[in-house]
Parts: sequence; C-alpha cells; structure tokens
Amino acid sequence: MCELLGMSANVPTDIVFSFTGLMRRGGDTGPHRDGWGIGFYEGRGLRLFQEPRASSGSEVAQLVQRYPIKSEVVIGHIRQANVGKVCLANTHPFVRELWGRNWCFAHNGQLAGFAPTPSFYRPIGDTDSEAAFCALLNGLRRDFPEPVAVELFLPGLVAACAAYRKHGVFNCLLSNGDWLFSFCSTKLAHITRRAPFGPAQLKDADVRVDFQAETTPNDVVTVLATEPLTDNECWNLYRPGEWRLWRGGECVAQGMSD
Amino acid sequence: MCELLGMSANVPTDIVFSFTGLMRRGGDTGPHRDGWGIGFYEGRGLRLFQEPRASSGSEVAQLVQRYPIKSEVVIGHIRQANVGKVCLANTHPFVRELWGRNWCFAHNGQLAGFAPTPSFYRPIGDTDSEAAFCALLNGLRRDFPEPVAVELFLPGLVAACAAYRKHGVFNCLLSNGDWLFSFCSTKLAHITRRAPFGPAQLKDADVRVDFQAETTPNDVVTVLATEPLTDNECWNLYRPGEWRLWRGGECVAQGMSD
Repeated sequence: MCELLGMSANVPTDIVFSFTGLMRRGGDTGPHRDGWGIGFYEGRGLRLFQEPRASSGSEVAQLVQRYPIKSEVVIGHIRQANVGKVCLANTHPFVRELWGRNWCFAHNGQLAGFAPTPSFYRPIGDTDSEAAFCALLNGLRRDFPEPVAVELFLPGLVAACAAYRKHGVFNCLLSNGDWLFSFCSTKLAHITRRAPFGPAQLKDADVRVDFQAETTPNDVVTVLATEPLTDNECWNLYRPGEWRLWRGGECVAQGMSD
Repeated sequence: MCELLGMSANVPTDIVFSFTGLMRRGGDTGPHRDGWGIGFYEGRGLRLFQEPRASSGSEVAQLVQRYPIKSEVVIGHIRQANVGKVCLANTHPFVRELWGRNWCFAHNGQLAGFAPTPSFYRPIGDTDSEAAFCALLNGLRRDFPEPVAVELFLPGLVAACAAYRKHGVFNCLLSNGDWLFSFCSTKLAHITRRAPFGPAQLKDADVRVDFQAETTPNDVVTVLATEPLTDNECWNLYRPGEWRLWRGGECVAQGMSD
C-alpha cells in the first residue's frame, strides 16, 4: 500500500511540516521504500519532484523539506510497489494536460482485472494507477471535448471512481490546480486549520510547529493524508465511499458514492 | 533570446559539466534571467527541474549541478522572456504524453503571427513556444493516431518545423526519450565526444573536466547547445535550415529543410 498527501489552501502555503512527516514513512517509520513524489501547483504551472527510491534518505526530498515552496494545491505520494516495477515512470503523482491545464493524480490501492481500452491518454509506465488516471481523463474528454466547470463533470468523476473501487481499493487525489478532488475507498483523513491556529506535533518525527507564528488570521489550510500526520490535533476520517471537493482550503462539495 | 542544451548518449551519462556552463549564462555570464529548466529521461520516465527565475542563484540548479543524474537524453533551456510573462507555466522544456511516451520540447526564438487552431493538445501557459509544441503534436496525432517509428513521421516533423520557421526563429529540441530531434533555424552547435577522450574547459566558468577519467572506451556522447560551451574543443555549427536526429549519441539522420 501507499500513502497519499494533499493540501488545499486559500493562500500560497508551504507544506514542509506535513511533507517532513510523510517522508519519514518512506522507508524510516513506514515501509514505503519504492518511490515518492510531490507536485506543487504554482499558478497554472506544476512543479514536480519524484524519485523511484526511499524518501527517507533522498537528497531531493531533503531539498524539498528545506526549501519552503508555497502553493495553493499540493499532491504527494509515497509508494510501496504492488503493481508495476520500481522506476521513475511508475512513480506517482502522474500528470497530463487536459483543456489547457495540468491535471495531477495520485492513487493508493490496487485494482484487479482492470484493463481499460487504450484511447487518447495512454499510460507511460505499467501501474494500474496510471491506467486508471488515463481512463478517467479519457472519459472526461469523451463527455466534454471542451472545458467545463468542475460542477458539470463532478457526477461523472464520482461515478468513475465508484466503478474503479469495485475492482479493489481506490483512494485518490486529483487536481487541476484550481480544485482538489478526493475519493475515499478505504482510508483517508483530513484536517482544516484556521484561526485561532495552534501548535502541531508530528507523529513520525520529533518536529513541532506553531502555526500561529506562520499564518495570518484569514488563512485556511486543509491537509489530507492516508493517516493523520499529527498526534495532538483532531483529524476527520472519511467514510468508505465518501468524496470531497476542496477549493481554497474549504470543502465546496461532498457526498457518498454507491 | 534563449539558449538550448541537449544531450544524446549511448550510456547513461551525467550532464553536470555542460549544465554548469549553461547555468552561468542564466543571469551571470549571460542575460537569461527569466527561468531555466532541464528534463532528464530515465527509461520512459522524465525527471524535470524548472524555475521561473535566474539559474545562477538557484538552489534547485545547484542541486542539479551537485547531483550527477545519469540519462541518455537530456533537454535543457534558459529563458530570456520575449513572449509570455515570467512564470512556471511559461518555463521550458514543455512536456506532453503522446503514444504512451513523454515528449519533451524546448525552443529558442520567436514566432510572429502564429495562432494555431486549438485541438487536442492545448497550451497551459501563453508562450509561442508551447503553442508550437502543441501544434506539432496535434499534427503528428492527426497523421498517426497509433504509434509509428520516428522514420515515418520525420518528414512531416521537418516540414512543420520549416513552416514554423517562416514565422520567425525556430531553433528547437524535441525528444520522446529514445531519439533526440534538433532543428536549426539560426543557431545551434553540436559536438560528439568518443574515445580517445580528452580534457574540456568551460567558456563560462573556470571548470575543467577530464572526460578520459569519467568514461569507458565505448561511450559516445553528443552535446548540443545554442553556442559552444567549451573553448578548447571543435564544435560543429548547424547551418540554418539543417536538422539532425540523434540516437545513442550518434547522428542517425540529417538533412536540410527549404
């Protein structure tokens, strides 16, 4: 299994604290030795760091922890390979351009007997995750050849995720840089931090941060993770089948799939 | 104007030496302060580092110089903005997936009155370069919906580059990780290093390398750059209109366009 990390914020925010916790799980406090990746949206651009090896000893991961990249939407992933060999092409998150935007996707879980018909978007590597991402985008493009608002394709997106879930486990994060879509098949947690901000203590490292000192009173920052990253805050657990759409740190739509 | 950097090699080779020279031109010995980017193929995967600011003081650029990423195909670029504002989405190289491979593209020059019809691939930023890249891929996909060997679409690719060149200046590098295509509109240079290897001295920095100590007798490494990067070796200059296709460090096809 893998672990997911997501962030949606109403101001450019760095994710150094949460990323530090996740990276420890990549071969140190956790078994996810087969790769890690993180994508930071910067306007319409996407800054992607990936490595097909354990994050806990990675020089690039150390740079990302040292270098506070500010972003409004982030998607991160650490990998313990199930399907597909350990290589860069199989490292999440995956990226494709749709409707002139960068779409970024990460998946936790496994899909059995899942072989979508090749269409426009095709997997570069050989994971079930990238195949599912390509199938999702092919479905969207088939239904909407021209760009539409997220509200219009959201029902189809949820239905596709629910269908993939029938093949196994399908926890996922998807974004186009504007919104962050999250789908829980088995396990996903979220926390929204806003004023009054308090201190937080990582579970996986002896690191503590005082968000009060790093924020302004209007900041709203939601962090999503497979498992809660801190042990002194109250995280909310998604129910299996639950999906949420985040924008600017706020949950703007949510529901349960079949 | 911008500067291009390319590498094609028959064994995974690091480009630290050449990258170090190029990065000095990004705001130090050259005026290219508006961004830099470099893509390293690793199998079918692509590792991309980009920043919308001068390379000469960049911490990420320093990491790339310190960290010898070995690759068989590399495309790099430093930018002095002409068209499109300075932002990550406008930073070369640009990447799209076509036929299940990562295609990577960088351009030096400017195209006037160039407004291709929106089709499948759409620009994310607002540079003429990314618009040209999308138009190139849209043309390939239109002519070849299914993957074909490079030899089959090469005439169409050369014709498209020759047509773009009529709009201004179109020096470019394009790769799918297997081959590296280069097109010279005004300025491009290449050097192929093979045994017996000798020492090389950068033009833009007091850095010298002895390739003899870093290579094996069978290595073949071609480096492409807008202007020669070393001052003690003999670089070959492309003629305007000349194109070359490189694979494993060797020129496997070449010609002149109209």
